[in-house]
Amino acid sequence: MDHRTLKERLAGAFVALITPFDAADQVDVAGLRGNAAWMLARGLDGILLLGSTGEQVHLSEFERALVLEVGRQQIPADRLLIAGAGLSGTRQTIEETRQAGRAGADVALVVTPSYYQKAMNAANLTNHYRAVADASPIPIMLYSVPPIVNVTLPAEAVAALAGHPNIIGMKNSGGDPQMAGLYREAAAGHDFIILGGSAHAAPGFLLTGLVDGVILAAANVLPEAAANLVRAARDGDITATRRYGELLRRVSETVGRHGIAGWKAGLAARGQVGGLARLPLRNITDSERQQVIAWTNELAAAL
Amino acid sequence: MDHRTLKERLAGAFVALITPFDAADQVDVAGLRGNAAWMLARGLDGILLLGSTGEQVHLSEFERALVLEVGRQQIPADRLLIAGAGLSGTRQTIEETRQAGRAGADVALVVTPSYYQKAMNAANLTNHYRAVADASPIPIMLYSVPPIVNVTLPAEAVAALAGHPNIIGMKNSGGDPQMAGLYREAAAGHDFIILGGSAHAAPGFLLTGLVDGVILAAANVLPEAAANLVRAARDGDITATRRYGELLRRVSETVGRHGIAGWKAGLAARGQVGGLARLPLRNITDSERQQVIAWTNELAAAL
Amino acid sequence: MDHRTLKERLAGAFVALITPFDAADQVDVAGLRGNAAWMLARGLDGILLLGSTGEQVHLSEFERALVLEVGRQQIPADRLLIAGAGLSGTRQTIEETRQAGRAGADVALVVTPSYYQKAMNAANLTNHYRAVADASPIPIMLYSVPPIVNVTLPAEAVAALAGHPNIIGMKNSGGDPQMAGLYREAAAGHDFIILGGSAHAAPGFLLTGLVDGVILAAANVLPEAAANLVRAARDGDITATRRYGELLRRVSETVGRHGIAGWKAGLAARGQVGGLARLPLRNITDSERQQVIAWTNELAAAL
Amino acid sequence: MDHRTLKERLAGAFVALITPFDAADQVDVAGLRGNAAWMLARGLDGILLLGSTGEQVHLSEFERALVLEVGRQQIPADRLLIAGAGLSGTRQTIEETRQAGRAGADVALVVTPSYYQKAMNAANLTNHYRAVADASPIPIMLYSVPPIVNVTLPAEAVAALAGHPNIIGMKNSGGDPQMAGLYREAAAGHDFIILGGSAHAAPGFLLTGLVDGVILAAANVLPEAAANLVRAARDGDITATRRYGELLRRVSETVGRHGIAGWKAGLAARGQVGGLARLPLRNITDSERQQVIAWTNELAAAL
Repeated sequence: MDHRTLKERLAGAFVALITPFDAADQVDVAGLRGNAAWMLARGLDGILLLGSTGEQVHLSEFERALVLEVGRQQIPADRLLIAGAGLSGTRQTIEETRQAGRAGADVALVVTPSYYQKAMNAANLTNHYRAVADASPIPIMLYSVPPIVNVTLPAEAVAALAGHPNIIGMKNSGGDPQMAGLYREAAAGHDFIILGGSAHAAPGFLLTGLVDGVILAAANVLPEAAANLVRAARDGDITATRRYGELLRRVSETVGRHGIAGWKAGLAARGQVGGLARLPLRNITDSERQQVIAWTNELAAAL
Repeated sequence: MDHRTLKERLAGAFVALITPFDAADQVDVAGLRGNAAWMLARGLDGILLLGSTGEQVHLSEFERALVLEVGRQQIPADRLLIAGAGLSGTRQTIEETRQAGRAGADVALVVTPSYYQKAMNAANLTNHYRAVADASPIPIMLYSVPPIVNVTLPAEAVAALAGHPNIIGMKNSGGDPQMAGLYREAAAGHDFIILGGSAHAAPGFLLTGLVDGVILAAANVLPEAAANLVRAARDGDITATRRYGELLRRVSETVGRHGIAGWKAGLAARGQVGGLARLPLRNITDSERQQVIAWTNELAAAL
Repeated sequence: MDHRTLKERLAGAFVALITPFDAADQVDVAGLRGNAAWMLARGLDGILLLGSTGEQVHLSEFERALVLEVGRQQIPADRLLIAGAGLSGTRQTIEETRQAGRAGADVALVVTPSYYQKAMNAANLTNHYRAVADASPIPIMLYSVPPIVNVTLPAEAVAALAGHPNIIGMKNSGGDPQMAGLYREAAAGHDFIILGGSAHAAPGFLLTGLVDGVILAAANVLPEAAANLVRAARDGDITATRRYGELLRRVSETVGRHGIAGWKAGLAARGQVGGLARLPLRNITDSERQQVIAWTNELAAAL
Repeated sequence: MDHRTLKERLAGAFVALITPFDAADQVDVAGLRGNAAWMLARGLDGILLLGSTGEQVHLSEFERALVLEVGRQQIPADRLLIAGAGLSGTRQTIEETRQAGRAGADVALVVTPSYYQKAMNAANLTNHYRAVADASPIPIMLYSVPPIVNVTLPAEAVAALAGHPNIIGMKNSGGDPQMAGLYREAAAGHDFIILGGSAHAAPGFLLTGLVDGVILAAANVLPEAAANLVRAARDGDITATRRYGELLRRVSETVGRHGIAGWKAGLAARGQVGGLARLPLRNITDSERQQVIAWTNELAAAL
């Protein structure tokens, strides 16, 4: 039995797992099961389902429920299931956290809405997150991912929200060290977990205490590196932190340049189930796939 | 009976109608009916429902169907119902165009997906629109709205798509004259309607032939000005074009600074049903509402 | 003798003339003389020397003085010499306006400083322009050129400066119709000339009264089109405005894609002296030059 | 006698020293001397004069020569004088490196030109730097400072230039960990020094090997922290690295929010000579100065 608190368990290494689709473009349930099991066997502390890498925005309501259901069956109670639950409107987001709660997710990860970008200021985002946190049956994490949706959660909003009893922390997928410092400062005095989502930033952010753990897309291909990175940084082992950081950096610059289709192909190259990305995302060509396989094999061999 | 073609009918003035919510935050069906009737009585050629101003992204699937159903009942066959139908994924967007077709919409307006912003390049958007156009039961219009979602539809995509038999044109809500010129050039040789969505750009774009008509959020407050603007420009009446353009500019700089909540308050000031915006959008304070009423009254008096 | 005021004379068509360099990379004085004479013979109301297109930032203090000296000899008193005089610091800019005054320039055009971009807010720019206007021996024009230096002069600064007795107007090289409207509004009540610097925006801005005239880089290749554009718009001739606007748009999309090296090659194709651009700007290849010649000949033939 | 190579000596801690002006807005020569001596007494490995913080762009040619002359007199041969030498054009930049060489500077720091921002691509910047390096009498460093001038030196240019015998390294004032990784990768195989210019990024970049040392504006106020930061990171002392990094972060978020005027006021609070910033930069109010003094005292006490 795990005596650690939820926050202690969140301070680890997680994968932002892809959602595999089969040849008929349906969710590949068996593939999802196998992928989840494989990830957990490689030392990760849990799995994020329905994140940006999980193509949440390309799934129907039914499919989102299915992914969480299957995922929870596969993820034992001593590992965490984090469920992407952010939608464009506050009402739908609340409903989505309820769905995540029913499915047994431990935490709901709520991305900043991004459709009306210029309106997503500190005041509006604070109102949004407060309403969601008030209503969610499970703890929520804030989620700022400027490289994808071009909205940066202001530190002022984090300061206003960090003390909310149902807000357990945030995922910061930005790489800006100044912003990361402001988040830490904004949450000072609160037991507030910050997980990094940028593989490039992760080594430095972990060593300097700007994040407590990571949720990485790159862990789809190199979950071992993500787990070892967090462990090395926690142990103050600078050499090992650099080493695993460099592997994650290289997989991001190579496989990751193809986006979600790249992560899927890289995961397939590790013997798991990748499949295609859904439109409007681009899938990769056969020659690109051969490259991804070569890169993956080279980097996996260096683990 | 209207002998004009659909394209001829699209070269006019349209409102991007707000969706009114009642005190219980439910779609105000009676309000929607009244608003639509009021708009059509003011000379507009039709109505866009479920656009960015219509908070499509804040509505459930059921609510979206309801809005189209009620709207079509209110919009006679000689006026056009344009239905916002763009969602994040290609699959869902196709399903949404089918829903719009079932509801009797004349045209489906498909906004560029914007979640994975950096992936929304010409190739991916071309694939997306081609798949949607192939499957949609009704003609579609492309929709580029950089001021809101920070994605600009590349002219190269318009060039690739303008000849598709089920793509009837586009709405360009950007204000950049260079981009507007490139769109026109990209569509050259095709019978492709371009409607402007920027009130600031509309007078110049109409006079110089960069757009054929407009779909404006500002028409929620001054539908008469939108209708007269298009007529004046069509008649080559520069003085009247400037005059109505200035009214639309001023309503955009005043009422429009409050976003959708502003348009709703302005419409209410015209005696129709506005209601509140849904979260995470901000609603206006009482004193802001008084200002909106004063601005609206002043500008409406100048019509 | 010209009885018009300076402001009336500024409401016309101007070229942002390139500075020709000879094979030894020195200012080609004879070339400059010939180019200026050729421009004035094509109906322009005057010439901007040392603008962005004139590579002011690539010239030594001596060369800048030389260009103005030679230019003034060539530009008769009934045509205007506008001198680019903006430098990074306020002190140097004041000195530069004095140099322009000594050389006999009619107006000093002062670009927004841009090195410390984020500091270039309304307050700092207002202070800068006020200090320069107070000290300049000749009237100054503000100059906002976001497409090049990524600084947009805030409308608030224009409002604060429009009444200054030594500030005669501004050049707006941005294409945003909203910003153009705000500038006009900011200057309301003052006799303040606004010249457009975007060939793409010019036709619409002229017809809707957002600018009073133009200073165009594209006029290096098609000065006749610039002169005729302004005349057509002044006469309310929409058809002719569109026609000349389209020629300027096309020369911008073709020749202009090569930047200053392109304008120089296009001017050479018109039989004048172009020469190379100075480093770090790129020069064009031989095959690109052939293309520029072909484009220029085609467009000049359509004049 | 110092047997280390120039590159070994560059792998240290430097201040981007402000240029003090006296009440008559002239370079305060005595103040400059005192400031330089004070800095070197606090453990720094040398001084950057005429950087962005040194207001190079606000100084006349004579003043720039004066600053280097005085600086070199004050900086003994066993400490490095790095001279900011980048101007808008390649010709002037070459001349500036010659001036720096005559003044006895050890290295010329050449910022990316930024006036024609969109033209500053990898090819043009490579040509620029190659021409400057070929002609400079002293080794040059590339300098990328996107937070100020909005130009990012592409990694491709670094790859093309890293092997040039007269290019000794670069200063990267950006904070993006991905870009920092690409620079390191681009320079792989070359003896190429990378100095960090972002106080926020420095601790993480030093610990993960992305930079070899720092040149910081924040060192104007806390030179001891900059020197200790580099030493701590070199020793693998994570705790001390975090501690000095946090002091530099805090001084940047407080004193640094006022830009160069803030650094000057903070330096004055340390008992040295600050003076005012030149226009168009904003100077601080009296109450802001009191705040800067309080912040500086608090942080200096924590050293």
